[in-house]
Amino acid sequence: MRNPQLNKHGELQHLLTLDGLPRSIITQILDTAAPFTEMAEREVKKLPLLRGKSVFNLFFENSTRTRTTFEIAAKRLSADVINLNVSTSSTKKGETLLDTVDNLCAMQADMFVVRHESSGAPHLIAQHLENTGRDHIHVVNAGDGRHAHPTQGLLDMYTIRHYKKEFHNLTVAIVGDVLHSRVARSQIAALTTLGVPEVRVIGPKTLLPTDVEKMGVRYCPTMEEGLKDVDVVMMLRLQNERMNGALLPSPQEFFKVWGLTAEKLARAKPDAIVMHPGPMNRGVEIDSAVADGSQAVILPQVTFGIAVRMAVMSMLGSH
Amino acid sequence: MRNPQLNKHGELQHLLTLDGLPRSIITQILDTAAPFTEMAEREVKKLPLLRGKSVFNLFFENSTRTRTTFEIAAKRLSADVINLNVSTSSTKKGETLLDTVDNLCAMQADMFVVRHESSGAPHLIAQHLENTGRDHIHVVNAGDGRHAHPTQGLLDMYTIRHYKKEFHNLTVAIVGDVLHSRVARSQIAALTTLGVPEVRVIGPKTLLPTDVEKMGVRYCPTMEEGLKDVDVVMMLRLQNERMNGALLPSPQEFFKVWGLTAEKLARAKPDAIVMHPGPMNRGVEIDSAVADGSQAVILPQVTFGIAVRMAVMSMLGSH
Amino acid sequence: MRNPQLNKHGELQHLLTLDGLPRSIITQILDTAAPFTEMAEREVKKLPLLRGKSVFNLFFENSTRTRTTFEIAAKRLSADVINLNVSTSSTKKGETLLDTVDNLCAMQADMFVVRHESSGAPHLIAQHLENTGRDHIHVVNAGDGRHAHPTQGLLDMYTIRHYKKEFHNLTVAIVGDVLHSRVARSQIAALTTLGVPEVRVIGPKTLLPTDVEKMGVRYCPTMEEGLKDVDVVMMLRLQNERMNGALLPSPQEFFKVWGLTAEKLARAKPDAIVMHPGPMNRGVEIDSAVADGSQAVILPQVTFGIAVRMAVMSMLGSH
Repeated sequence: MRNPQLNKHGELQHLLTLDGLPRSIITQILDTAAPFTEMAEREVKKLPLLRGKSVFNLFFENSTRTRTTFEIAAKRLSADVINLNVSTSSTKKGETLLDTVDNLCAMQADMFVVRHESSGAPHLIAQHLENTGRDHIHVVNAGDGRHAHPTQGLLDMYTIRHYKKEFHNLTVAIVGDVLHSRVARSQIAALTTLGVPEVRVIGPKTLLPTDVEKMGVRYCPTMEEGLKDVDVVMMLRLQNERMNGALLPSPQEFFKVWGLTAEKLARAKPDAIVMHPGPMNRGVEIDSAVADGSQAVILPQVTFGIAVRMAVMSMLGSH
Repeated sequence: MRNPQLNKHGELQHLLTLDGLPRSIITQILDTAAPFTEMAEREVKKLPLLRGKSVFNLFFENSTRTRTTFEIAAKRLSADVINLNVSTSSTKKGETLLDTVDNLCAMQADMFVVRHESSGAPHLIAQHLENTGRDHIHVVNAGDGRHAHPTQGLLDMYTIRHYKKEFHNLTVAIVGDVLHSRVARSQIAALTTLGVPEVRVIGPKTLLPTDVEKMGVRYCPTMEEGLKDVDVVMMLRLQNERMNGALLPSPQEFFKVWGLTAEKLARAKPDAIVMHPGPMNRGVEIDSAVADGSQAVILPQVTFGIAVRMAVMSMLGSH
Repeated sequence: MRNPQLNKHGELQHLLTLDGLPRSIITQILDTAAPFTEMAEREVKKLPLLRGKSVFNLFFENSTRTRTTFEIAAKRLSADVINLNVSTSSTKKGETLLDTVDNLCAMQADMFVVRHESSGAPHLIAQHLENTGRDHIHVVNAGDGRHAHPTQGLLDMYTIRHYKKEFHNLTVAIVGDVLHSRVARSQIAALTTLGVPEVRVIGPKTLLPTDVEKMGVRYCPTMEEGLKDVDVVMMLRLQNERMNGALLPSPQEFFKVWGLTAEKLARAKPDAIVMHPGPMNRGVEIDSAVADGSQAVILPQVTFGIAVRMAVMSMLGSH
């Protein structure tokens, strides 16, 4: 069966998830992103790669931060960007998701950046486009439920490659609320594909999916054990707003056990990098001294995120 | 008395309503729209016709769908588009409608696309611009109360002409909630002006205006009678959100009597087209088999809607 | 100590407040704005001065009107504009103000236009940029708490200079709710700096700051006394939404005593101009006959506001 994210020529057709995306495509995205990163330094801010194309930010769930990064990336590629906050729109009037998509296609959309609270919504849209023969329209998943957030996973891979050059000799720890994180699943899929030999997951059992060990990762019950000699520490955000109160540790309790402090970080390799997808809860999952310290690469992640999104959009828009 | 929508040279000055708009102007708009439709097929997406012009989407009532179509049309003409959701803005602070307009004019607006819950608001703005000698600023009505939605009416005319070539030999049926529809009034005005000999209105008496027969249409109390041998079926949306509950048939009851099914559609001519302004309530006013069937031209309507809005805006912006 | 708004070459680095801004810089802004005003008349609407630059409208408090003027100014300078309504965004998720700023900087922001309900927020951001060596990123205060709204003050100065040519021979009266007005403080600072010999403040004692006379102005307890022989009348908006009900005069009472009518205006010089920052409460602080009369320059203020904002942004963006 053909990979639903690739077209018949093996090119990227939609970016839905990093799960099952071939290593060659991931590497192509990272390679494509590199000059976009350097572009900023050379004060070249606009490229005409998507001139005349219409990119629709189709957000069924509000996320100013993610929407902004895609908007910037699309504008730097000279696309026309239309922001649609769909929760306040037609779906309220009873229109179905696919009717909304059909309407926007009829307005000559070239690309949909989709954020949805339900897992699988971007896949459903991509499948519908394929079923109706609209191969020239592309879907980028900007986060669906707890499922995936592939451009975040890609920017993380870009960041790791930028600082560590290779993947095959790394030990990477993912720390925190894996259960509610769409980022973690994308990260694990990508790290595995790129050949990282050891991915560890650290966090309270109540915030881990029950199938965590099936993901090919090693579960570590303590920070002490989990951070020992790692090259990369990937912190997750404590998703307060997605939890129900009863099971939630207090922020103080969480920080004491799972918060990243300089002391805990000292267990990692001396040149280990610290990553966080943002927004940070300082004093909850990460101490300010670490967040602002010399090992943190949290702001470069944001910069690379623009470049990676430009790479994905320019690859999709080229066919 | 001069037609308030035309300037002294007989050119379109504002688009407020199709009621009273001369046939020659309607035809000019449809003719102007034609190449914009073809443009999309030739992958030419931007034209410089409104370069440097500022178009203000002045929405006193939220309508993401309509706002998006105007935004796309204006951007394809290279205008700068400023979206103003005015319900959350100055009017809350006690500013009058005309003060808001005066302020935006002072910011060098070239065109206002106005959506307002009150009938006549766009006319009031156009009148004010005329009274104050600001002939270079134009108003497009994007829906005012129950009164008019002229670009929707125009895209419907474009669609009919596209599929049926001529108007003088057609029978057209408008089905559903005429009472709450600003679309229906624009449609009836345009069909009459363009010489359609028979316009039928079908729907429950409680959802028809009391003066429906004064509009020059024929009222048909049943779908069986109304759809017989028609060339065009124009469905209306059931405006749930504009009704009060007491008089409202249940969606199931409504669908049984007035919903368009393949069986009812079989009464129409075999080559009849089915139109709907969207968003559709599937299973309420239209069956999915019809909505997605070969006679439906609902998505082409959306595409033509962009072209028609480009036509109107480029005509207004040219003088 | 170096002025925090100037860089080491004495150029404008941030626009935070008119308090302490040197006369030479204010004059430079007004001089720079002049051709932008004329531009509109010559139908030249876009200049490439900020091409490729990213301007972030960072609004922690909703203000469609102010946001729109900056958006228009930035687009006329060919910048890419990203609107961020931050009250509904990351700060809800626990991110700090400076983390938000750091993230946007990492997205290669060139300029922040900041509106915040807390006095000093734009200063805090500017200080943070300086502390972290990001000299190429600039901050424009678009209103912070009750503190300052410098571009409004500048457009007022532009307006006065436009109509009165000189400042050194003027008597200016500021009327109304000084206490809740961020505009008034900016106005008083600028008028003083530009050498206006007499600035009067007129209004009910309950709507004046307790330190009003320390501002170098003359308090006049009645309109009759305060308006006598003035050259410029600067009305303020009655900030209903910022007051608590108990101390508030009724609009009718307020108008009777402090509302500007033709009768009261007759006390001023015959060629006195009447200004208002908008949005106006007609019949509360100003009578419609005056607002629409020949001495009102309220709409030119809006036009000049675009030019002044273009001037500030182009000066900041040039280094």
